[in-house]
Amino acid sequence: MEKKQNTAEKKAVILLSGGIDSATTLAIAKSLNFATYALSFSYGQRHSVEVDAARRIARYFEVCRHLIVNIDLRTLGGSALTADIDVPKNRDLRDVSQKIPVTYVPARNTIFLSYALAWAEVIGAADIFIGVNALDYSGYPDCRPEYIAAFEKMAQLATKSSVEDNQPMRINAPLINLSKEQIIQKGLKLGVDFSLTHSCYDPSADGSACGACDSCLLRLNGFRSAGLKDPVRYR
Amino acid sequence: MEKKQNTAEKKAVILLSGGIDSATTLAIAKSLNFATYALSFSYGQRHSVEVDAARRIARYFEVCRHLIVNIDLRTLGGSALTADIDVPKNRDLRDVSQKIPVTYVPARNTIFLSYALAWAEVIGAADIFIGVNALDYSGYPDCRPEYIAAFEKMAQLATKSSVEDNQPMRINAPLINLSKEQIIQKGLKLGVDFSLTHSCYDPSADGSACGACDSCLLRLNGFRSAGLKDPVRYR
Repeated sequence: MEKKQNTAEKKAVILLSGGIDSATTLAIAKSLNFATYALSFSYGQRHSVEVDAARRIARYFEVCRHLIVNIDLRTLGGSALTADIDVPKNRDLRDVSQKIPVTYVPARNTIFLSYALAWAEVIGAADIFIGVNALDYSGYPDCRPEYIAAFEKMAQLATKSSVEDNQPMRINAPLINLSKEQIIQKGLKLGVDFSLTHSCYDPSADGSACGACDSCLLRLNGFRSAGLKDPVRYR
Repeated sequence: MEKKQNTAEKKAVILLSGGIDSATTLAIAKSLNFATYALSFSYGQRHSVEVDAARRIARYFEVCRHLIVNIDLRTLGGSALTADIDVPKNRDLRDVSQKIPVTYVPARNTIFLSYALAWAEVIGAADIFIGVNALDYSGYPDCRPEYIAAFEKMAQLATKSSVEDNQPMRINAPLINLSKEQIIQKGLKLGVDFSLTHSCYDPSADGSACGACDSCLLRLNGFRSAGLKDPVRYR
């Protein structure tokens, strides 16, 4: 169901995974007065609790629409998040940002941004928001500023609106230079309820987090640095 | 089932839609001694006969593997090929290349190339082939050389292999400057059996082509210019 919206508002597509970063990114887009269109993916990930978290956050922020697209990355293989490879646990956080881990999903952000681009064109949005960040980025190549800039350039050549209407597509990555601690603080200031979010790569059936995968470690460290207690449940 | 292959061979992912262009592109990749991995999409298009054509061509050229990925572009809406908009018929061919038609699928090539990029990374390929061409391109922005170059640049920043193994991804678009006539002649020289291909945007239930949509008009015109008879069935 489409929510009523001011037709003068600019529209934005926000990639919403259900984690801290994308929730904060959605809050930023709202604070900039965009009419927000949240896009999530169900991609055969072990952690489909992510999608539930995305639903809660989309509802909480009263987005105009929340679209969940089914994509089958398992067909392609190649990652601990989609195939039968063990999620690494209790790694040294200094290692986390060094080498690309097995949880890396090949070309994931490229696929996600491509769908966002398609949807943006259909609804007439010229802005896409993605919550990548380059500091605590877990070593994924598609979280770097130069990657985002290159995607934006490609997007501006790819679409009908950019060719016919001279409405260049912008890829906004407002967290790109923030630490997890800074993201949490920014999110809190913008009213994000972090108890709704989910980050764990290896959650229990009841949704509680493992506290030991890279994503949990980065999250816990972020809350610790901010002097706060993480409101989600750990097992 | 994986076919045996010479391990010294370089691998390439080829986007295979089942039309004249992608069949010829696959033939070109074979002629360059690539181990060929064909990638097709079932995307809720009206013309799922396309996928059957892709299967026939993949078999004919004995590819190492043919992967068909289900994607749901209908969720996103916005095109006569995926939504309930009528396919335009009998347009003047001079108009076909002027304005982007309603059959344009938003960001389609970007989504297709993104999956190709993901699969290339998983199988260790550094080459992707796509059969776009800029002359008879039906006015799609994502068929232009500058778009392909921008995608390649982005791809080289997106992947683990390009970052860690210094194996830059190449997007090959060998038909980009050819006319439909030249593509048909090149295909014939490389042994493409065009009776296996399918181009129509609006085929009958038995798979026969309408002869009036943009895609049929471009195809028929190409065969006519080459002084040849199109071997597929028209109704």
